[in-house]
Amino acid sequence: MKLYDSTIAPNPRRVRIFLAEKGLTVPVEQVDMRSGVNRQPAFLAKNPMGMLPVLELDDGTCIAESLVICEYFEDLHPDPALIGRTPQERAETRMWERRMELEVMGPLLSAFRHGSPFFKGRITQVTDMVEPCRATTAKRLAWVNGLLGEREFVAGNRYSIADITLFCTLDFGGKVGEAYDPSLTNVVRWHEAMKARPSAAA
Amino acid sequence: MKLYDSTIAPNPRRVRIFLAEKGLTVPVEQVDMRSGVNRQPAFLAKNPMGMLPVLELDDGTCIAESLVICEYFEDLHPDPALIGRTPQERAETRMWERRMELEVMGPLLSAFRHGSPFFKGRITQVTDMVEPCRATTAKRLAWVNGLLGEREFVAGNRYSIADITLFCTLDFGGKVGEAYDPSLTNVVRWHEAMKARPSAAA
Repeated sequence: MKLYDSTIAPNPRRVRIFLAEKGLTVPVEQVDMRSGVNRQPAFLAKNPMGMLPVLELDDGTCIAESLVICEYFEDLHPDPALIGRTPQERAETRMWERRMELEVMGPLLSAFRHGSPFFKGRITQVTDMVEPCRATTAKRLAWVNGLLGEREFVAGNRYSIADITLFCTLDFGGKVGEAYDPSLTNVVRWHEAMKARPSAAA
Repeated sequence: MKLYDSTIAPNPRRVRIFLAEKGLTVPVEQVDMRSGVNRQPAFLAKNPMGMLPVLELDDGTCIAESLVICEYFEDLHPDPALIGRTPQERAETRMWERRMELEVMGPLLSAFRHGSPFFKGRITQVTDMVEPCRATTAKRLAWVNGLLGEREFVAGNRYSIADITLFCTLDFGGKVGEAYDPSLTNVVRWHEAMKARPSAAA
């Protein structure tokens, strides 16, 4: 088993933190996204989408998509549960994870991709998307701020993969000019708690 | 248990087809999206995102997100497997499902949302997004066409939730002016096979 990783992108970090929280170690190979190694044939044979991370299994099967890789490790190593112990717990966690991914990470990354020089020539940038995406992200984070006033973690009273997705999103946003409004005090409190976990070093 | 449903949107159909393939029946309540019932407080209490479908459990817990609802039913009723029987099978299916969702459904729905009069006033429409999204969808479907030249179903040699996501996407696209290029003969062959399944009536 080998994990193809990149330390500059937010998605591979979701898997690294997930593994750290599980106490698992997997052989890792860094893929240089800046020089486009992920867009070359050798890597595209592993993931035609050219994206990271990818988990290569011992039989050569390549599993792409951060969330799918996390689900696979949860399947193999259920404890500690980062998705859930019962069908209902899993459903609730997955719902909150998806909300963080689609409603917060999605628009934040869209704002970044449509505005950043890094993506010039990599995607069709539509600069008119930047501000609406920033507005959506801000609106969703105001909603999350309300939720975090009533509970400790994103999915309720237990740490989960939903926290990992939001944490990687907000940390990445802070590094690329998409920082959140510091008046969202519940988000700030939660974010500090996430940073204090040993897994944050992953 | 009750499923809040809408027959005009593509996502609720993913769950209806999944249930039909499982041979399951769940009480259903239609929510009128055209008149915006899904944006009113009673529904927002069930899903703050205002989206359908939503599965309300007997204890009042509301599970949103089509994919999450399908995973829940797979957890409760593993046969026939539409996600997978083993960790690796589940990982492969989930990866292909996500590719269909993020790489085909995502840009196709973005093209529709940014261009359609239905979404005027509902989202910030950026008309410059329509053509790049259409181009991305076409490029991804050309790739899928190649895949379907070598295998029967999206995720390989077994019907799965990945087929359901692509089928609902392409059927919806055909209804809203985002039909695919009929020269993609493998997609056409696969699409006809999907339409011939009894679950297509769901």
